[in-house]
Amino acid sequence: MNIVIIGAGAMGSIYGGRLSQHNQVCLIDTNEAIVRQIRTHGLILQENGAEHTYYPDARTSAAGMPPADLVILFVKALYSRQALTAARELIGPRTYLMTLQNGAGHEDLLAEFAPRDHIIIGTTEDNGAVLAPGHVRRGGTGKTNIGMLTQDASGFLRTLKDTLDACGFQGCIHENIRQLIWNKLFTNASLSALTGVLQVPMGYIAGNPHAWTVARRLIREAVEVAHALGLEADEEAVTEMVRQNSVNSPEGITSICADLRDGRRTEVGTISGSVVRAAKACGVPAPTHELMVELIRALEERP
Amino acid sequence: MNIVIIGAGAMGSIYGGRLSQHNQVCLIDTNEAIVRQIRTHGLILQENGAEHTYYPDARTSAAGMPPADLVILFVKALYSRQALTAARELIGPRTYLMTLQNGAGHEDLLAEFAPRDHIIIGTTEDNGAVLAPGHVRRGGTGKTNIGMLTQDASGFLRTLKDTLDACGFQGCIHENIRQLIWNKLFTNASLSALTGVLQVPMGYIAGNPHAWTVARRLIREAVEVAHALGLEADEEAVTEMVRQNSVNSPEGITSICADLRDGRRTEVGTISGSVVRAAKACGVPAPTHELMVELIRALEERP
Repeated sequence: MNIVIIGAGAMGSIYGGRLSQHNQVCLIDTNEAIVRQIRTHGLILQENGAEHTYYPDARTSAAGMPPADLVILFVKALYSRQALTAARELIGPRTYLMTLQNGAGHEDLLAEFAPRDHIIIGTTEDNGAVLAPGHVRRGGTGKTNIGMLTQDASGFLRTLKDTLDACGFQGCIHENIRQLIWNKLFTNASLSALTGVLQVPMGYIAGNPHAWTVARRLIREAVEVAHALGLEADEEAVTEMVRQNSVNSPEGITSICADLRDGRRTEVGTISGSVVRAAKACGVPAPTHELMVELIRALEERP
Repeated sequence: MNIVIIGAGAMGSIYGGRLSQHNQVCLIDTNEAIVRQIRTHGLILQENGAEHTYYPDARTSAAGMPPADLVILFVKALYSRQALTAARELIGPRTYLMTLQNGAGHEDLLAEFAPRDHIIIGTTEDNGAVLAPGHVRRGGTGKTNIGMLTQDASGFLRTLKDTLDACGFQGCIHENIRQLIWNKLFTNASLSALTGVLQVPMGYIAGNPHAWTVARRLIREAVEVAHALGLEADEEAVTEMVRQNSVNSPEGITSICADLRDGRRTEVGTISGSVVRAAKACGVPAPTHELMVELIRALEERP
């Protein structure tokens, strides 16, 4: 398969490197140091303690490239529109466009660049960290959950699952992928912004009664938004799932927490922001998520 | 007048020191170092750059003392009940009990210790800082606003104003003291908790659009609670007053912000908490103030 991955951060590199074993892969990233490193020395993944080098193509721009079979968007969601606009020529009439980014509702943006029956959304349970340009540690692995907004008439999801599985991923096709995305969002939207504001590890949320009171309010609002979207969500079960995620990663640092600590822009607009946008679209109130977005933005913009 | 001041922090010391010029004053504080210093060397106030020494009495306990003419409560509000319980014998049938503490609604607690027609509530525009035990800098000065919950049948407020004025304060009697207390609370409840969560100086709130969005929501809720209490509050005028207070103290650090920064318990229960309690009593929602209380508590309890 001819695959282009936009964004050579940790996740883009993990998918790009491993998929390049059996496919023609090109990574696109505006960071010249990363592209130069991959083109000169290959892409190094630290996997289970050992280092493996992969040799995907890498470019700073999609200019002049033909349409791909599959384009995977792996930039931070706040750069999605900009990245897709710059990569328009990669998306032909038969190209599938996929995102595994955090948050919900990315399909609305993707639909501006590809027909709805060629859009794949999903989540990944894999994680990793950038060690240096072109050098990434592959951390925990898990399912790559994929699904479509429409019926998969062409059977592409099956082909994609086989492609993923052949390269060391664990592809998992879902009939109701939005439900699955929201199941992940319930945890992200209640733990990420809150650990960011409080600057605490994940375990603090379930362990501190005041933090937990706020988390429960965030869960309740998100569940009501999910209901308004026609998704299934049992507040009690969701609450218990979030609690387990907090308890099971006592020292876990969320990306929003780390980004604020290190003075970077966060993904709050993708995570809490996606709850807020869905709430507005459905006419359901989500004042606590709105507040978390404003607080995180105010924290980001401190001098 | 025979005056006992409970709490020899910055404000207790400023009032205790200066009132001791023309009155019999005793300061009570559980901190032995402060009491020993005042008993041995006097109470030193740095005023306008010069240092003056005052000689009030000082004790670690009210045990064995006769009822006073006036008891002024100057501990942090979270210690009010404990302090008043320990000082019960100071409050006789003719004793007036006064608080100038931040926040609103202190009269409910005071009424457990003295009849309502012997309770004085108010605010002070004076400020100061502890330099060392028994050594306090008197900062800005302003009005000492006082009022009663009932008609002042005995004319005590007039006597008290004269006593304050004679000792370098600027006593100001108010018919509707709760209105004045809420006017101060509007600013405190919208700036203090928020500067605490964001760890920013006061000027940041009006200057940052996200912080200001949160502040406006806090103002709106507090104004609705004030209306439910039967007080006057014009949302637009209150908003402009808070904005001015933010703009005019760009580098001002609120006590909640400083307490969180230095790992101390804050007065959020007195400030935002008083809006929450009043809201509950009136059946008016104040979810954003509730949230700020929970966030500050969660921040306080971090290891």
